[in-house]
Amino acid sequence: MALINYLSRIQFDHGALGRLPGELAALGVSRPLLVTDPGVVAAGLAERLKAALGGAPAAAFEETPSNPTEAAARRALAGFREAGCDGVVALGGGSAIDLGKAVALLASHPGRLADYTVGAGGAAKIGRVAPMVAIPTTAGTGSEVGRAASLTLESGAKAACVSLNLVPSVALCDPELTLSLPAAMTAATGIDALCHGIEAYLSNRVNPPAAAIALDCVRRAGRWLSRAVSHGDDREARWQMLMAALEGGLTFQKGLGAVHAASHPLGALGLHHGTLNGVLLPAVLRFNASHCEAQYQHLRQALGLAPGADLADWAAGLRDALGLPNGLLAMGVDEAVLPEIAEAAARDHLNETNPRPASAADFRAILADAMVG
Amino acid sequence: MALINYLSRIQFDHGALGRLPGELAALGVSRPLLVTDPGVVAAGLAERLKAALGGAPAAAFEETPSNPTEAAARRALAGFREAGCDGVVALGGGSAIDLGKAVALLASHPGRLADYTVGAGGAAKIGRVAPMVAIPTTAGTGSEVGRAASLTLESGAKAACVSLNLVPSVALCDPELTLSLPAAMTAATGIDALCHGIEAYLSNRVNPPAAAIALDCVRRAGRWLSRAVSHGDDREARWQMLMAALEGGLTFQKGLGAVHAASHPLGALGLHHGTLNGVLLPAVLRFNASHCEAQYQHLRQALGLAPGADLADWAAGLRDALGLPNGLLAMGVDEAVLPEIAEAAARDHLNETNPRPASAADFRAILADAMVG
Repeated sequence: MALINYLSRIQFDHGALGRLPGELAALGVSRPLLVTDPGVVAAGLAERLKAALGGAPAAAFEETPSNPTEAAARRALAGFREAGCDGVVALGGGSAIDLGKAVALLASHPGRLADYTVGAGGAAKIGRVAPMVAIPTTAGTGSEVGRAASLTLESGAKAACVSLNLVPSVALCDPELTLSLPAAMTAATGIDALCHGIEAYLSNRVNPPAAAIALDCVRRAGRWLSRAVSHGDDREARWQMLMAALEGGLTFQKGLGAVHAASHPLGALGLHHGTLNGVLLPAVLRFNASHCEAQYQHLRQALGLAPGADLADWAAGLRDALGLPNGLLAMGVDEAVLPEIAEAAARDHLNETNPRPASAADFRAILADAMVG
Repeated sequence: MALINYLSRIQFDHGALGRLPGELAALGVSRPLLVTDPGVVAAGLAERLKAALGGAPAAAFEETPSNPTEAAARRALAGFREAGCDGVVALGGGSAIDLGKAVALLASHPGRLADYTVGAGGAAKIGRVAPMVAIPTTAGTGSEVGRAASLTLESGAKAACVSLNLVPSVALCDPELTLSLPAAMTAATGIDALCHGIEAYLSNRVNPPAAAIALDCVRRAGRWLSRAVSHGDDREARWQMLMAALEGGLTFQKGLGAVHAASHPLGALGLHHGTLNGVLLPAVLRFNASHCEAQYQHLRQALGLAPGADLADWAAGLRDALGLPNGLLAMGVDEAVLPEIAEAAARDHLNETNPRPASAADFRAILADAMVG
């Protein structure tokens, strides 16, 4: 049975930030809490948001850590409550948006995040949350239209809360906000969008509309990612990559695969999510190849590659051309942790939708392959 | 500015009808009104629905006219109220589903349909309507995921109510329910789905996810429509065409074009909507050609045509192969009405998103071209 769900209202174009007052009014939000991070503030983007709002928001939490935590969500929530806020505006990459989702959840539900994780059966417990506008400043995670919030809990464990009620009420996607993103971060987040498109397209779940969007994401990211990295001031490239990231996010419902299943436990070591995905992609494409002949042909067409081209080689070449690390070793991963990572990857729920079943032994081989590109 | 909105929960597969009790329970509906039509009842599909429900619904309105009317909606609404219903289940083609939307609207809003039409600024007045499950028995209109209800008002005028709140809460798409659809109706409704994909893909509005879905709709309908017509018992062909119709419906937000702008006023003469679209398509493809070079190339690829193939000729050939009338003349359209139809088509809101601006004079030429194929 195919379950197909699209829930987002999205305003997308250069200048979309200017729609913020109108969208907040339509949501009935008059006292928003701004959730953002120090890098976004330093880039002057929080100031631009305040200018668009015509003044300071009712409250602001500008200390989102690069890996968001429940402790940070609690501090932001205290500000939300003190200022009598009635909605959340999250401005930033996936971390700020995920933190914003956690605040919207905790502002409207009792207890702790641990009560609402996938493992705790949270999907059934998460009702309507506080209204939220998500404004991405990177082109990668797609969290602005995604249903998941990944945070480090008070216990120290990293976990995800997943519910359609966590899809932001509105996504404002303004490519101008990504023009100042440095090349290295453009590459590390953009490869994440590409991985979303590839993994969703290959997933074993039936959802043709999502597959169509995923293939368009791959085509778009394949065409524009290198340009956005090499020419960060190219407005067209930034528009296209923000669209690719959005399209990637719209396809999550089709499921992802082994790249993300492995990057989750590796991410718990403190490593960058998108970079991990880019480094894992060639090895996973090699592993899946025998189970995806027709789909690989479609991916080659979308990427403008020759019919017999090796997709894994192409992915490795892109990784290198973008200046990403050439393997897990270069990211500082110790070979000794690989068996444990492989076990966790095999258990990850995203492994269930990988087109080729992958055991822990398979993940050990994939990880070994990904150590040095 | 691109506004991108997806709102539907869709269960799609052979046997999806069996999900009805669970979906109603999730919506909190315990006393549904069934809205259907005599053809659906005669085909035994209402009985199948009752079997899936485990008994008769709280009330049933089985008299949906082939062109739905406000008067019929009023009669259905009386049954809804008498039986203390709390939701609507619409089973049928676009007519039954549009009637169901009107009942859901009138059950939750005061006044008459005329208060809620596009022309009356209804979009701003339509709030949450009664919960509704749409179950299509034809593969064509996409109304099961669409936001519009087209009905003949008490005044005799045909008008549309359009609101995101009219998107059915759930669409249950079960290809088995289309297996018994006669070949002529399979052709006349299926060509509608193809026209949705083509017109949405070509529309001048920017919405890449919708464009990707539209192109997939074209690819799918181009591949499977003839087969569904010639072999109505082919479960795969029925699945694919119901998916193409669904994909067409998911793309309406990108806008349609001159085919639909002209078929609306022609439809007010009592002519079949899908058949009109199939008959108008070749002439509109000829008219738009000079403004859509790149998009036509993508359509040719999706349809497996040679790079230089004439799309209008292909559409005319498909029309003939499907046994559709070869022009408006064969449908009984009198040449004398064409000037008035052309004026109405030029004013139709769907003309605004046609890729080539079309004046009333342009529509006179298109209609003349479409008289005899």
